[in-house]
Amino acid sequence: MSATIHPLPRRAEPSLQPLMALVADGMNSVNAVILDRMQSRIPLIPALAGHLIAGGGKRMRPMLTLASAALVGYGGSRHYKLAAAVEFIHTATLLHDDVVDGSDMRRGKQTANIIYGNPATVLVGDFLFSRSFELMVEDGSIKVLRILSNAAAVITEGEVDQLVAQRQIETSEERYLSIINGKTAALFAAACRIAAVVAERSEADEAALDSYGRNLGIAFQLADDAIDYDSDAAEMGKTAGDDFREGKMTLPVILAYARGSDDEREFWRQAIAGDRNGDADLAHAIGLIRRHDAVQATRERARHYATRAIDAIAAFPSGTAKAAMIEAAEFAVARRF
Amino acid sequence: MSATIHPLPRRAEPSLQPLMALVADGMNSVNAVILDRMQSRIPLIPALAGHLIAGGGKRMRPMLTLASAALVGYGGSRHYKLAAAVEFIHTATLLHDDVVDGSDMRRGKQTANIIYGNPATVLVGDFLFSRSFELMVEDGSIKVLRILSNAAAVITEGEVDQLVAQRQIETSEERYLSIINGKTAALFAAACRIAAVVAERSEADEAALDSYGRNLGIAFQLADDAIDYDSDAAEMGKTAGDDFREGKMTLPVILAYARGSDDEREFWRQAIAGDRNGDADLAHAIGLIRRHDAVQATRERARHYATRAIDAIAAFPSGTAKAAMIEAAEFAVARRF
Repeated sequence: MSATIHPLPRRAEPSLQPLMALVADGMNSVNAVILDRMQSRIPLIPALAGHLIAGGGKRMRPMLTLASAALVGYGGSRHYKLAAAVEFIHTATLLHDDVVDGSDMRRGKQTANIIYGNPATVLVGDFLFSRSFELMVEDGSIKVLRILSNAAAVITEGEVDQLVAQRQIETSEERYLSIINGKTAALFAAACRIAAVVAERSEADEAALDSYGRNLGIAFQLADDAIDYDSDAAEMGKTAGDDFREGKMTLPVILAYARGSDDEREFWRQAIAGDRNGDADLAHAIGLIRRHDAVQATRERARHYATRAIDAIAAFPSGTAKAAMIEAAEFAVARRF
Repeated sequence: MSATIHPLPRRAEPSLQPLMALVADGMNSVNAVILDRMQSRIPLIPALAGHLIAGGGKRMRPMLTLASAALVGYGGSRHYKLAAAVEFIHTATLLHDDVVDGSDMRRGKQTANIIYGNPATVLVGDFLFSRSFELMVEDGSIKVLRILSNAAAVITEGEVDQLVAQRQIETSEERYLSIINGKTAALFAAACRIAAVVAERSEADEAALDSYGRNLGIAFQLADDAIDYDSDAAEMGKTAGDDFREGKMTLPVILAYARGSDDEREFWRQAIAGDRNGDADLAHAIGLIRRHDAVQATRERARHYATRAIDAIAAFPSGTAKAAMIEAAEFAVARRF
């Protein structure tokens, strides 16, 4: 038997691997809490919740809590329950989002609302939301409760604002940023900040981790919204063109509309109003977005926020935690799924 | 001008008047918190929430928090915010219930989901739920947070269980009691218990108020479910026969089915399955329920729980608070709306 050395291929793209490796052990503890606390005497609850929870999400938010805890050198175990609470809040909002949007696919699978119906999906979302507060209460930190209850309120405000802006062609980039700051970035920020709280670090460290999470969340959402006009459903595990058909005013559309000719702007008005949303219209929309480099511009915006996220943690000591968090921010922009 | 003395008519029926008089001043403070904290930078949120909140509900739960505080001689003001938090939890569940049930009328008005749509109604429910936790966090008592977060989880379990039992003719009285204990009585119990917590009374006093609220909640729900087969929409301010058309297994149906002949049981099987739910079927159902005194029996069950509620506070000193809470329990059974 001869030993053959296979050199590892050089990684061309930033990846989530370093982050996942950093928190792998801790995530076992978080996942144990998640599985334990989604149980109920009503079997439908773990069945429905488990469909989404076991459905292959990245669990970015709890990973960020654990990575932030590692960054500040936290040696305790309180963050496992709190990371699970964060994931429950996120899962509850996904369940309700799918009802609100009438979605039928998420992460390449049928959504819970299609399988179990809207009523059960709404109620199990409520259950997970309640459970997340029970987990926080068990931890007992009023400061953590304040941060996460505020994040939860801000998330719903962002989602309502998104609903109001739907099919409104005149939505500005500012308003879009305000919406994604609420619906996505607030929970990323809270997930990171609470690690500094349990580690009893300074307000400045709390604010730095909040800023990392917030900017990373914005970068992730911008990249998500770029992907919806950049790849097909098979690649991204959700239905491509969903945003277009739902008349959601995401940045690629906002930029293509702003940069477009009068004729193009008339098309966008009709499309976002819901009058032109067939497959041919989607293809035309993607063509217009390409013509004006709107996906590319959206990714550049994402890069800006990812850079801000990285700079927010610049003062923390170097090490595997910081390196993993930096690469996660680079991944947020570079990913294509 | 001659003075004429009009003797007050003797009150024939128990009423909520003594309870409302007891807490009138305090409810002004609670209502101020409710109005202040349902605000948002997104105008749709107070518009939608206000439609239900201003829509003529009795505000039983916050009134019970205030009455319980009076019963234990609490002289502070912490209970105003907490009573508002309880009402927000309740309002959130009503908004979600109306989406889950597809209701179109509540308290004699169109429901929010009909006016504003299901998506906004789900999200504003989430917002109020988050706001309720923010209010509790501001109060800062982990014990109160534990009681109310647990109640919130139990409510959703009760609602999911009710959904699972829907159109299931073989639902037992035990299961029905378990469902209403979750969906209704848990929050009544918590609303009363937290008054003992802020007043720093003994565990025994907490348990007594919990028991008062829980039994009162069961009595209220039993009476509600009796009313749905006992009066018309004009009287009750909601659509009569809703429970029947939705195939909800409430106690009047459970008893009429249990006491019915083979033919009657076959009718109930078809009706609850949704195969016979027209106006003539509803009239037939009401006839069967009358034949077996099932509304009367449901009211007698309600009286049993109301009596238990009254006995739970027997050891507290007599006074206007106790008298008002006793009459509220009598009202719960006697009311026809």
